[in-house]
Amino acid sequence: MRAEIISIGTELLLGQITDTNAATLGEFLARQGITHTHRQTVGDNLPRIVEAIQLALTRAEIIFTIGGLGPTPDDLTRLAIAQSIGEELTLDEAIKAHLIEEYGKRGLKMSESQFRQAERPPSGTPIPNPNGTAPGLHTEKDNHHIFALPGPKSEFGPMLAGPVKEILGQIHSGDPLHSRTLRVVGVSEAIIGEKLASLMDAKNPTVAPYAKTGEVHLRITTSAATTEEADKIINPIADQIHTILGSAIYAEGEESLAAWIIQELTRRGQTIATAESCTGGLLAAEFTSIDGSSKVFPAGFVTYSAESKHRELGVDLETLRTHGTVAEPTAIEMATGARELAQTDFAISITGVAGAVPLDEPPSPKASGLVFVGIASPQGNAVHRLHFRGSRDIIRTRAVIAALIRFRDILIVI
Amino acid sequence: MRAEIISIGTELLLGQITDTNAATLGEFLARQGITHTHRQTVGDNLPRIVEAIQLALTRAEIIFTIGGLGPTPDDLTRLAIAQSIGEELTLDEAIKAHLIEEYGKRGLKMSESQFRQAERPPSGTPIPNPNGTAPGLHTEKDNHHIFALPGPKSEFGPMLAGPVKEILGQIHSGDPLHSRTLRVVGVSEAIIGEKLASLMDAKNPTVAPYAKTGEVHLRITTSAATTEEADKIINPIADQIHTILGSAIYAEGEESLAAWIIQELTRRGQTIATAESCTGGLLAAEFTSIDGSSKVFPAGFVTYSAESKHRELGVDLETLRTHGTVAEPTAIEMATGARELAQTDFAISITGVAGAVPLDEPPSPKASGLVFVGIASPQGNAVHRLHFRGSRDIIRTRAVIAALIRFRDILIVI
Repeated sequence: MRAEIISIGTELLLGQITDTNAATLGEFLARQGITHTHRQTVGDNLPRIVEAIQLALTRAEIIFTIGGLGPTPDDLTRLAIAQSIGEELTLDEAIKAHLIEEYGKRGLKMSESQFRQAERPPSGTPIPNPNGTAPGLHTEKDNHHIFALPGPKSEFGPMLAGPVKEILGQIHSGDPLHSRTLRVVGVSEAIIGEKLASLMDAKNPTVAPYAKTGEVHLRITTSAATTEEADKIINPIADQIHTILGSAIYAEGEESLAAWIIQELTRRGQTIATAESCTGGLLAAEFTSIDGSSKVFPAGFVTYSAESKHRELGVDLETLRTHGTVAEPTAIEMATGARELAQTDFAISITGVAGAVPLDEPPSPKASGLVFVGIASPQGNAVHRLHFRGSRDIIRTRAVIAALIRFRDILIVI
Repeated sequence: MRAEIISIGTELLLGQITDTNAATLGEFLARQGITHTHRQTVGDNLPRIVEAIQLALTRAEIIFTIGGLGPTPDDLTRLAIAQSIGEELTLDEAIKAHLIEEYGKRGLKMSESQFRQAERPPSGTPIPNPNGTAPGLHTEKDNHHIFALPGPKSEFGPMLAGPVKEILGQIHSGDPLHSRTLRVVGVSEAIIGEKLASLMDAKNPTVAPYAKTGEVHLRITTSAATTEEADKIINPIADQIHTILGSAIYAEGEESLAAWIIQELTRRGQTIATAESCTGGLLAAEFTSIDGSSKVFPAGFVTYSAESKHRELGVDLETLRTHGTVAEPTAIEMATGARELAQTDFAISITGVAGAVPLDEPPSPKASGLVFVGIASPQGNAVHRLHFRGSRDIIRTRAVIAALIRFRDILIVI
């Protein structure tokens, strides 16, 4: 069966919002093993939405519309679906009662115009909305399915992952999908594409790269009745990719490095502090973005000037004079200083040149992109010299990821 | 004249990348006053790309394709355009010479297959690529224009803003566009839509909301021969919006608050430090993301635990015992502590409950979302009590924006 996506909303055309829902749905369909070859985007205009649905019906059996389900006159998706399949909208009393109840729970009273959200064509059934009031709509007619999903991300995601996935499982029978994700850093998607060209052309298992901030996720997917069967298909390909990409593969799975580190330290009852220069708080922000990090991460220091590295972290003035702020000994003293001050088991420091060389830096051949990561631990200290290319933002992001990777490597062995 | 966008790439369908280029182009077209009503997305498949272009030619005079211009066999856009307009691709010797030169500059030798990037239909002319090697393609035939733009963001943006804008200026004559941007915080796009419904329905000037992280940009746009004429149309509407939204409008223009603050402090020769709890380094990261911030921002402190607030920033143990970590006096002592330690003119502190209440917090009725922003200045100290709703990430982002706004308000008056 083939699917097609229709994103609806003038705000999408005008670029007021980026269509992340369509990307989410595309990835979801790929995971379900459902092919989709076209996506259309139209504004809040009835004839154009109808035309788009009718075009999609000529080339796909499963159509997804995203958006246009709200209570305002701009929301035309229900009506467009009814017109596309030659039906009239009727008020569904059960949906109406459900809406009144849901609005009531939120202390709201429904206006007459909002009852349009309770309308559906006779061939349609409501899709429960786990995270909102108005339901989606699943229409089945002449072996064609139309799924109308809401535009707000917080409603779209849960509806897709819950009820829609369930209905699709009944429509699109087949073995479940299994996948394994290899996480790659320091190699561009283009280079990965070149190196893995033959593997990525193969149909079973599929190998697909997903670009994330500062890294690429390589997902190997196959459908199989059991995990064991899937492993037999996926693992040899994973081994090949490990051979080809080597140490560029730094982890497996979809969990963030920071989350893994926080969990591991929580399990051990250990703590960590940070001392940052060029990344200016991004590493601390990465740790503190994880729920429960307060038990593990008591404190971080952003020492952006040379002076503050001495004053706040106790980096020796002689070290700064001799080596400058971007240097191995400085990185080590930042890490050991932070570890002592915050009284933690570990500390990570980052110092580097992310943009223009700071004015308080002595003249040196240090180029933008040079970064040192220092790690202080009960077993001793380590420092890593790294070099990144790209904009200020890219260098900062890469430096944070590199620091997390180095720390994880240490945590695994001690 | 009407435009249509065709995004090309299997990786877009699979959700491996989000189509931010199409959103950028949509916003660009809106700014140029060019209507566009449809967007299509197709994979790297020749018949489907040709079909999409031919469909677009029936309903628009200006077609933009994005992607598929690279050197690999998957890159089919040039060929699809030629087929759509019934022409044959020919090798352009001038482009070929240019490519060899550009590759040479980068120390690369071109392979035979890469010369396909020098092919064009006879009706096409190359569009210079300010930020890459291979040119785009502008085809003009039967009063229809096709612009083929590259997919990589770093090449797409500069080509659009430079040569494409210039060519469009010749095709689409009319008065230049003028706009004014009001920045709104603390009010959702939906509420803005309700409150400004009549203004947003108007055609001249147009009022369009652009959702950004934690805020909404409201852009008022009109076309006029001179700035004075534009002001006469735009300013009364801006005044109306100011009356309706009041203090929710916190700034004008597209420049970030952090950039404005760094510039203002640089001009004055003053400095600032940060002391963060729940935002865990995000405020420091915001300042240090600005090039040149090192002169203004020497140091920041992330004091996530109660103990570190005392140890690192000198917050009184009695204050912490009596009031807890999330409280007015704690916020003030964090700010004054950071200001003294970093020896800066100003310091901003943020302490609040972004997720679950920390374990080292004494039991209290403090709910998630409660945030205190403290500001220490040579003229004295201030503290703001705020309350945000939403996920951990949203509360953290809002808290950083609120802190920047409060500090800007103070900076304006002293």
